[in-house]
Amino acid sequence: MGLQLGQIVAALGGCLEGGDPQTPITRIAPLESADAHSISFLHNPRYAAQLAQTQAACVIVAPAMREAALAHGACITTPDPYAYFARLTQLWQAQQPPAWPQGVHPTAVVHPEALVDPSASVGPHCTIERGAVVGAQTVLRARVHIGQGCTIGERCILHPGVVIGADGFGFAKQNGQWQKIEQLGAVVIGDDVEIGANTCIDRGALDDTVIADGVKIDNLVQIAHNVKIGAHTVIAGNTGIAGSAKIGAHCSIGGAANILGHLQIADGTSISPTSMVTRSIHKPDLYTGIFPIQTNAEWEKNAASLKQLSQLRERIKKLEKALNALTEDK
Amino acid sequence: MGLQLGQIVAALGGCLEGGDPQTPITRIAPLESADAHSISFLHNPRYAAQLAQTQAACVIVAPAMREAALAHGACITTPDPYAYFARLTQLWQAQQPPAWPQGVHPTAVVHPEALVDPSASVGPHCTIERGAVVGAQTVLRARVHIGQGCTIGERCILHPGVVIGADGFGFAKQNGQWQKIEQLGAVVIGDDVEIGANTCIDRGALDDTVIADGVKIDNLVQIAHNVKIGAHTVIAGNTGIAGSAKIGAHCSIGGAANILGHLQIADGTSISPTSMVTRSIHKPDLYTGIFPIQTNAEWEKNAASLKQLSQLRERIKKLEKALNALTEDK
Amino acid sequence: MGLQLGQIVAALGGCLEGGDPQTPITRIAPLESADAHSISFLHNPRYAAQLAQTQAACVIVAPAMREAALAHGACITTPDPYAYFARLTQLWQAQQPPAWPQGVHPTAVVHPEALVDPSASVGPHCTIERGAVVGAQTVLRARVHIGQGCTIGERCILHPGVVIGADGFGFAKQNGQWQKIEQLGAVVIGDDVEIGANTCIDRGALDDTVIADGVKIDNLVQIAHNVKIGAHTVIAGNTGIAGSAKIGAHCSIGGAANILGHLQIADGTSISPTSMVTRSIHKPDLYTGIFPIQTNAEWEKNAASLKQLSQLRERIKKLEKALNALTEDK
Repeated sequence: MGLQLGQIVAALGGCLEGGDPQTPITRIAPLESADAHSISFLHNPRYAAQLAQTQAACVIVAPAMREAALAHGACITTPDPYAYFARLTQLWQAQQPPAWPQGVHPTAVVHPEALVDPSASVGPHCTIERGAVVGAQTVLRARVHIGQGCTIGERCILHPGVVIGADGFGFAKQNGQWQKIEQLGAVVIGDDVEIGANTCIDRGALDDTVIADGVKIDNLVQIAHNVKIGAHTVIAGNTGIAGSAKIGAHCSIGGAANILGHLQIADGTSISPTSMVTRSIHKPDLYTGIFPIQTNAEWEKNAASLKQLSQLRERIKKLEKALNALTEDK
Repeated sequence: MGLQLGQIVAALGGCLEGGDPQTPITRIAPLESADAHSISFLHNPRYAAQLAQTQAACVIVAPAMREAALAHGACITTPDPYAYFARLTQLWQAQQPPAWPQGVHPTAVVHPEALVDPSASVGPHCTIERGAVVGAQTVLRARVHIGQGCTIGERCILHPGVVIGADGFGFAKQNGQWQKIEQLGAVVIGDDVEIGANTCIDRGALDDTVIADGVKIDNLVQIAHNVKIGAHTVIAGNTGIAGSAKIGAHCSIGGAANILGHLQIADGTSISPTSMVTRSIHKPDLYTGIFPIQTNAEWEKNAASLKQLSQLRERIKKLEKALNALTEDK
Repeated sequence: MGLQLGQIVAALGGCLEGGDPQTPITRIAPLESADAHSISFLHNPRYAAQLAQTQAACVIVAPAMREAALAHGACITTPDPYAYFARLTQLWQAQQPPAWPQGVHPTAVVHPEALVDPSASVGPHCTIERGAVVGAQTVLRARVHIGQGCTIGERCILHPGVVIGADGFGFAKQNGQWQKIEQLGAVVIGDDVEIGANTCIDRGALDDTVIADGVKIDNLVQIAHNVKIGAHTVIAGNTGIAGSAKIGAHCSIGGAANILGHLQIADGTSISPTSMVTRSIHKPDLYTGIFPIQTNAEWEKNAASLKQLSQLRERIKKLEKALNALTEDK
């Protein structure tokens, strides 16, 4: 597999300088591990010093870095080298044969009343239930489950083990036992959504669970019934979002974060990994709640004190009063 | 799809007043989004004010709310409106065609020595291994795995991707390497248990892992070997329960909570989401251990102080001593 | 199923004393629940008192415990009773018929360009994509997914629902939307690796994700792209390891722990369950970061104080200054 530098520029644009367009490229690599047949990129000016050391045949850089790059060898200049790199990986991937031919794999089970666009790919062991809709060019990689009446938009990618439209977790207590509340809503997923392996998105109780366009969700994420997620929000792995939470657009939710139910998170909010959101967030910012890690010996001492923190606060208050009294006495 | 008010009362009981039994109902909806063809319910008297605004054709209410509801329109009175609502969703669901016909789907793999009740439903791509038992009216939705020798009771629902009876995580260290401890126990699941998508319940090491009747488990939950879970306990998504923990009956475990191994949790205990249970709990109460979330800037300051909390406590102690000495001096 | 004591010693070594080699054993059991047909083991000298009470026909003990054991009945002495017990479970398991016959189950989908060793077992509904390699005696239990170009070593066990080689989570922001960075690396897994149910290991972005020999990973673990995990490290359930983290050999990562991306963890490090590793760890030790659990009432008070902890520290500092001034005054 490989491409010539000239083919890359022909496909993706940018300006090639200081190198022969026929130079064969066999690898995309980070600056530090690139070899003479690699193309690399400089995204963050902080790493500019790596330009001098890299063995790369060509480096994708912003115009401001053009001279520094040319001092070393060939470069492609482009306003956003990281986005260019992303498109280059897509060009590279397009050369690879697909894992499975387009269309519905013979081991997939598709209900006759489901609607799968002819340009969609449905991999081995997928199940698509009655009334489900899968949009154009969407790819269900392998054993993806699309529950009854759920809708997946266009150009989505669902990785192996994804479960869309299992029942939300709803029960009514009656005489100490749990009556099932049947989940009568569905899941509606927009266009250009990617959903990681073994992630689950439950159907709504009465209304739908809704994932807007361009949302990217990592592996093993749990999205409960009636959640709404705004466009272009990213959610890292192991995260849990409880029922009826409403996450804004352009948010960034760190891995293993958790968001309580019935909350609202403002557009553009970032949540640090493993943090627990217990109240609505109306002002976009980066929010964090992580217990700092220490050696276990140190932690034990601090955790013991933490259990008495409100008492410590009382003791400080008392000290302040007593000291005030002493000072006034004088 | 729809039902007349009279059909609902005929099926579920309750007393219909102020409305025509032939009124067609096409939707179950919350009070605030109900329309003239919706039936709604008032569960929490706190929301009684919504009665005045709702467009619902009929509202399910407790007898105490009868008058307020009638002032608006039709109502069904019943002692427990939320449980009535739950049963109404079941009535509604029963009208829908099932995702797959009853019985064993042709793509399921059932070992000839497994015992599947003829009234059970086994969806596409399920695997049921040798010696496993699946009880009457139990539903395995799709690609559910029931390991060798495991038992599922009656009227259970297992959602897509559930894995029952994978090996527990047991190894013995020998010369810096790990010897596998084969997991010789099984999993025994009672009646009326519901298990969410992609949840895993491991087989016991020597004895069995046991889930009692009426337990409800959400998605992506990890239940390790030899855990025992008491009847009618609910466990929300992403939770992890480590080996040999014994959870009581009627407990409520919040999402992404974790329970260490070999602990006991008293009947009726509640654990807040994301909290880590590090010791046995003998007295039922609500227990919490969540690092409060703040803006990252605030968090950084507080987390830094937290790492020195036991020192702060020492400084307070010193201050108290010094102040005492001063006061006594006078 | 059963074995005679003499058969056990013949297969596993050790020295049988005080018992008839023809004694039939039908169960392996803990000391406290063993019966007259059980074999048990004493691993931890702390539990030596249980020797006197056990009903076991034979107990596996270290030589130092030989006399105490013989006072009760038969024993097998061996330097490492726990490792002996592990091997005994393997001997036991080998008597059971396998869940599925060796070889590739007819419902598995194996790409013609994948390379599966003839001694490997591929269970129902597995998918093995183009260019993937599965080593000798490796077992894929059921619906395991091995992505394009990924390599699994010898004698590995992959439990149901495992996903190897889904795309890593990589996107470049462009005009507020996310461009996919195609994941061009693969996953390389060494020998003797065990991977728990529904665990996901993503393919690398440019280079590979690498799991070294002897690593044991529990259920529902998320391992992101380009992670490297050193030999014989164990990782408990629900854990998340973010992209490009480099975990050493012989580490022990507790359940639901999380490790940020691009960190390094020294060989031999232990991380407590649910702890969040936010910086590299260069010195092996046990590290912990857990918010201590309390009743919710106590927690509320302490959590409120925690949000002002850095202010409390300032107040202590002020008190110290004021007290100093007072003392110097005198």
